[in-house]
Amino acid sequence: MSSNSAAALLPSVAAPFYRAVGDEVEVFLAAARRSAPILLKGPTGCGKTRFVEAMAHELGRELITAAGHEDMTSADLVGRFLLKGGETVWVDGPLTRAVREGAICYLDEVVEARQDTTVVIHPLADHRRELPIDRLATTLRAAPGFQLVISYNPGYQSVLKSLKESTRQRFVAIELDFPPVETEIEIVAHEAGIDTATASALVGLGRAIRNLDGSPLREVASTRLLILAGGLVAEGLSPRAAARSAIVRTLSDDADVVRALDELVDAVLPRP
Amino acid sequence: MSSNSAAALLPSVAAPFYRAVGDEVEVFLAAARRSAPILLKGPTGCGKTRFVEAMAHELGRELITAAGHEDMTSADLVGRFLLKGGETVWVDGPLTRAVREGAICYLDEVVEARQDTTVVIHPLADHRRELPIDRLATTLRAAPGFQLVISYNPGYQSVLKSLKESTRQRFVAIELDFPPVETEIEIVAHEAGIDTATASALVGLGRAIRNLDGSPLREVASTRLLILAGGLVAEGLSPRAAARSAIVRTLSDDADVVRALDELVDAVLPRP
Amino acid sequence: MSSNSAAALLPSVAAPFYRAVGDEVEVFLAAARRSAPILLKGPTGCGKTRFVEAMAHELGRELITAAGHEDMTSADLVGRFLLKGGETVWVDGPLTRAVREGAICYLDEVVEARQDTTVVIHPLADHRRELPIDRLATTLRAAPGFQLVISYNPGYQSVLKSLKESTRQRFVAIELDFPPVETEIEIVAHEAGIDTATASALVGLGRAIRNLDGSPLREVASTRLLILAGGLVAEGLSPRAAARSAIVRTLSDDADVVRALDELVDAVLPRP
Amino acid sequence: MSSNSAAALLPSVAAPFYRAVGDEVEVFLAAARRSAPILLKGPTGCGKTRFVEAMAHELGRELITAAGHEDMTSADLVGRFLLKGGETVWVDGPLTRAVREGAICYLDEVVEARQDTTVVIHPLADHRRELPIDRLATTLRAAPGFQLVISYNPGYQSVLKSLKESTRQRFVAIELDFPPVETEIEIVAHEAGIDTATASALVGLGRAIRNLDGSPLREVASTRLLILAGGLVAEGLSPRAAARSAIVRTLSDDADVVRALDELVDAVLPRP
Amino acid sequence: MSSNSAAALLPSVAAPFYRAVGDEVEVFLAAARRSAPILLKGPTGCGKTRFVEAMAHELGRELITAAGHEDMTSADLVGRFLLKGGETVWVDGPLTRAVREGAICYLDEVVEARQDTTVVIHPLADHRRELPIDRLATTLRAAPGFQLVISYNPGYQSVLKSLKESTRQRFVAIELDFPPVETEIEIVAHEAGIDTATASALVGLGRAIRNLDGSPLREVASTRLLILAGGLVAEGLSPRAAARSAIVRTLSDDADVVRALDELVDAVLPRP
Amino acid sequence: MSSNSAAALLPSVAAPFYRAVGDEVEVFLAAARRSAPILLKGPTGCGKTRFVEAMAHELGRELITAAGHEDMTSADLVGRFLLKGGETVWVDGPLTRAVREGAICYLDEVVEARQDTTVVIHPLADHRRELPIDRLATTLRAAPGFQLVISYNPGYQSVLKSLKESTRQRFVAIELDFPPVETEIEIVAHEAGIDTATASALVGLGRAIRNLDGSPLREVASTRLLILAGGLVAEGLSPRAAARSAIVRTLSDDADVVRALDELVDAVLPRP
Repeated sequence: MSSNSAAALLPSVAAPFYRAVGDEVEVFLAAARRSAPILLKGPTGCGKTRFVEAMAHELGRELITAAGHEDMTSADLVGRFLLKGGETVWVDGPLTRAVREGAICYLDEVVEARQDTTVVIHPLADHRRELPIDRLATTLRAAPGFQLVISYNPGYQSVLKSLKESTRQRFVAIELDFPPVETEIEIVAHEAGIDTATASALVGLGRAIRNLDGSPLREVASTRLLILAGGLVAEGLSPRAAARSAIVRTLSDDADVVRALDELVDAVLPRP
Repeated sequence: MSSNSAAALLPSVAAPFYRAVGDEVEVFLAAARRSAPILLKGPTGCGKTRFVEAMAHELGRELITAAGHEDMTSADLVGRFLLKGGETVWVDGPLTRAVREGAICYLDEVVEARQDTTVVIHPLADHRRELPIDRLATTLRAAPGFQLVISYNPGYQSVLKSLKESTRQRFVAIELDFPPVETEIEIVAHEAGIDTATASALVGLGRAIRNLDGSPLREVASTRLLILAGGLVAEGLSPRAAARSAIVRTLSDDADVVRALDELVDAVLPRP
Repeated sequence: MSSNSAAALLPSVAAPFYRAVGDEVEVFLAAARRSAPILLKGPTGCGKTRFVEAMAHELGRELITAAGHEDMTSADLVGRFLLKGGETVWVDGPLTRAVREGAICYLDEVVEARQDTTVVIHPLADHRRELPIDRLATTLRAAPGFQLVISYNPGYQSVLKSLKESTRQRFVAIELDFPPVETEIEIVAHEAGIDTATASALVGLGRAIRNLDGSPLREVASTRLLILAGGLVAEGLSPRAAARSAIVRTLSDDADVVRALDELVDAVLPRP
Repeated sequence: MSSNSAAALLPSVAAPFYRAVGDEVEVFLAAARRSAPILLKGPTGCGKTRFVEAMAHELGRELITAAGHEDMTSADLVGRFLLKGGETVWVDGPLTRAVREGAICYLDEVVEARQDTTVVIHPLADHRRELPIDRLATTLRAAPGFQLVISYNPGYQSVLKSLKESTRQRFVAIELDFPPVETEIEIVAHEAGIDTATASALVGLGRAIRNLDGSPLREVASTRLLILAGGLVAEGLSPRAAARSAIVRTLSDDADVVRALDELVDAVLPRP
Repeated sequence: MSSNSAAALLPSVAAPFYRAVGDEVEVFLAAARRSAPILLKGPTGCGKTRFVEAMAHELGRELITAAGHEDMTSADLVGRFLLKGGETVWVDGPLTRAVREGAICYLDEVVEARQDTTVVIHPLADHRRELPIDRLATTLRAAPGFQLVISYNPGYQSVLKSLKESTRQRFVAIELDFPPVETEIEIVAHEAGIDTATASALVGLGRAIRNLDGSPLREVASTRLLILAGGLVAEGLSPRAAARSAIVRTLSDDADVVRALDELVDAVLPRP
Repeated sequence: MSSNSAAALLPSVAAPFYRAVGDEVEVFLAAARRSAPILLKGPTGCGKTRFVEAMAHELGRELITAAGHEDMTSADLVGRFLLKGGETVWVDGPLTRAVREGAICYLDEVVEARQDTTVVIHPLADHRRELPIDRLATTLRAAPGFQLVISYNPGYQSVLKSLKESTRQRFVAIELDFPPVETEIEIVAHEAGIDTATASALVGLGRAIRNLDGSPLREVASTRLLILAGGLVAEGLSPRAAARSAIVRTLSDDADVVRALDELVDAVLPRP
């Protein structure tokens, strides 16, 4: 179904636009056949979400997404009783819906959530494939096709917030990074709707920022930011103006850093 | 619709009084056409709110505003069920109203809110343009015209409170600063209802404070404070008395700083 | 309506007893005409509350007061639904009452409250003069005469608890201090109901304490404390006994400090 | 009504057994006539509660007591709605009862409570003598005779927990300490029901402990502890056994300190 | 009723098996006659609970126990309203039951509970012997026989969690320790159901561990652990295997410490 | 029933696949006959859960499991009232179910839960074998067969989170570790469904990682991870690709560590 080459192109008819970079597709599909949960690692904006969308399309399964945050509790994933017109009605959370429907459940940055949210996935992440729902006094068996995927960004996790080892050692890990230069140009041009020359210039800027020595930036210019800048060019801004807003000032608030990056923009991008 | 010059004047008939300083108008409108969310940066009182009001007028869209604070939760933005006379009634929050009505939603200093408030805007800030409302068990698709704008003040954000990178890299950033001197005089005179000479003296005081070497002030004298002082002059106070109350003592509680600034007031402003 | 002199006496018929020290009366009235909110600064017991009472009397408006504390939430200011005999009844908070009735709302030490309490006053503190009440799904427009006054004591605010700059820069600041010696004697004699000689002795003690070099006291002897001591004298205690209880032991728990202040009391006050 | 001598004995018919040590009785009564609230300071077990009981008896007023703790909220003082058989019933807290009935309200160690509890007493502690009860949407005027007394123990208050200055400067402070030796012997003999010789020996032990150089004890042997030990003697224990349990092991958990105090017990108290 | 000897045996017919070590029985009974509350100190597993059971049997009173923990609130002790089939029903907590029934209330490690739990026992711990129950708007007078006993373990109390002095100084303190060797052998043999020789070997091991120089253990081998090991021997394990599981690995997780203790086990206990 | 040899094989008909390593089976069964609770220690993924499953099968009892987390409260273990269609229904928690049914209750990593969860098991962990359920105002006596097992991982417990000594000293401790090499190869081959040669290679890799000098890893490669990697091989991935995902990237996020481990993978595992 998928070749072993580094840039295997997934079927493109109506499929999400995704270009494989390593063996991430093979690993994902093997883990899915094994029903092993997947831990997706990689920097912000490198395409983790798009990769999962492509895999869901490839497997023909629904994709249900939830984004973790530090106030998220297990009820946000599992569901809760709500009051409606005097009646209490149970409403499934995204995890429960995925369990019932055999969908892929993608928990984005779940490590930031409270620990009860990670413990609730334990019995789903081993051979049991069960979701106990205390408040319904029941236990759901995951439908065939249910696949758990969690992501996190190792680059800025705090020491305090990390996956418990007993959670982590249940997952097959896949590490993504920014794509190679030709692939990234193709992606930026396609997503932003600009020509290859402009996309190439923006990707050149992005790579120059990623290669800065001793960079004070917490995160580098992601593929997503390059697409955002490309979109402003498509709306009529000059590449320099687009890069100043969608890349430089999005990346940093520090006046010195902003000035240095603005100079880099002027050096790399064509005069309007 | 808008020229490229630095001080393009927006249509003034019934429009909010706003004078562009850089290319902020062009970037805002391009991002709005692209439905890309906007991150507005700049010091307190430099005119961020007024700029958004002007853009809403220019685009002919309603403006809905909410101010972030450290106790704000996602329910404050999305809505909640309220008890009224024994009935539970759902009341939309400001974000939900903007999503339904295709309005501009301006979240002021949202970075101070709890993290669930920023995560709730993720699916609104990318190609999905969706707002999942768990408690209604529904997902709203944003009406055309919905535009998300968030602001924050890089000058005094704490290290603990900063936008998550995965949130931040979804935004086009626009950085505002205090206007050039002639523009600021025009603004102060117009808003406070005083003559140009007095406005010019107050702006001179404001710029002298902004240029203090090694200033111990956390924030400088903003355009808003100059307008506030001008208003007290319009009510009959001397410029010096107005500046002592509306500028000096608003800026600092430190006795030494207050004394130094009072001397600066006496040096810069005319004797009554 | 009010002269420019430093000690303008407010109309005394049934008015609260207040003696102006600087131009605080003029600034208050100008800000009130401009509907600009007022930030009142000054040490504990210097007369902030009495000053606001006098201004409310001068302007002929009702005065509604609330004292901030670290557990205060916006509901304490705005109002909440209460259960009464099975019915839910909305009860206005002090801020809402003032907004409806066009009263002066005096928020004492509001900086200690939780941040949602300060954000709720933002739209009341600029040109909008609105109070959004989420739980009623309504927005109140402030009645004419509504005037916001907040106080705080710069002397012992913690670093963690300070007004947000974006809140602070909406206010005209008025700084109060203890009155000059003759004024303070007059106040103590009047309020405590004692003769001028005794009042003069107590004021002398108060000033001696305020002028202590390298004082270990967190706060000095306020006018309020001098009045309290005077009241005990009026009830028959000797001035020294009154000062030991109402001043020395109220100011300090430290045995060494108490002994030193007791000696100061014996040196300054007449033998019984 | 009460003499000026240091050991004025209060009327003893059915009155609580209290022996005045300084001018605390005069100051209390003067403050009560002035309706000034009272701050009672002194070490654990020196007789603060007994003193207030004696004053309540002297003034012929009811005494209502509440002990502060770090989880106490204003509702614990003011009252709350309770559900009873499906009905919501308002139940006055101790402060509200005292306000309605004109009683003495004694708040023991109130400084440990949450800050909203201290702010709620502000309007009761100045000329207003009012208690606003938000949840009843009413304001009570204190009945004649209402007197507020708060106590705290300066010896072990933490830096984090101290009375706000703006609260503290509303009170007349009275400082109590352990009574002089003859008085203490009389108290211990009377309260424990033992002879003067045994009481004298126990008081001797107590004073020896209080005078230890460089004592590692957080608190010394209070009059209350001496009475407790005396009570065990009255029940048949030897004075040494009683002191080891009711004094030494109550004061310290440290093995070395306990051994040293046991030796002191053997040196001071008679062999059984 | 009880002799003064160090090993007074309590009546043994159906009584809990307890062997007195010092004068703890006399002190307990004297305090009980005086209705003075008792503070029981001693290391984990030395027999505090068993001692209280024996005293309850001796006095012919019911024993009601509650174990403190850091989330315990006063409602856990006093009681609360519960919803049952739409009705609200009051359920007494253990303290309230003891107060009503004149039982001994034993609060194990109550120092770990939240402070409101210790304050609630104040009026029960002095001459008042009252339990105010706010939520019932009533005050219970303790039935005759009500006796308060609290325990704690000085060895591992944190600095943050200690009894307030004003609570502590209401109690008569009794300090327990592990029993002398002959007594301990008798206890282990009796409780575990093993012969005296094996019990003697286990007690020898326990004493060797207690006497380790510079021990890295937080707690030593308690009598309870020796009984637990003895029980495994009674079930067929060798003494060495029993000691490795029930003593060594229960006491420490540190590999070096476990190895050293295993060697001690081999040196002290007979080869199987 | 079970031999004393180190690798006693449990009955294999339909039984969970478990291979004993030391005397853990004998200790477990002796403690179970004694009704003594068991504390199971060992690194992540070494087979603690599987061991308990095997013991439950051996004893013919139901196994009920709950995983601790830092937000777990006693209600999560004991049960709570839930609203269902307007009715309140009590739902047993896992601990209560085990108590009623005489099952084995396995609390995984319960040390991470809030302290009230550990205190609730005290009366179940000694001779009383009772579970008081406050909210039902009842006390359950454990059915015969009820057995409490708790596990924790000494390797990464924080100092703040450790079992209270008074809880810990009620348990018989069993320490597990990774199995010997031949046993581990058999386990990996059986569980992953791969041949012995591949299992042997993976186990060799796991042991090489466990023996790294000065390893920066928080946890080593557990038996569980080796099985996970084996499963990917069974799905068609090369052993190296499987190890890179299921072992290396699961163990570490650090680029240097990942590179070093990848080199180790290439050195140890056969070329595909």
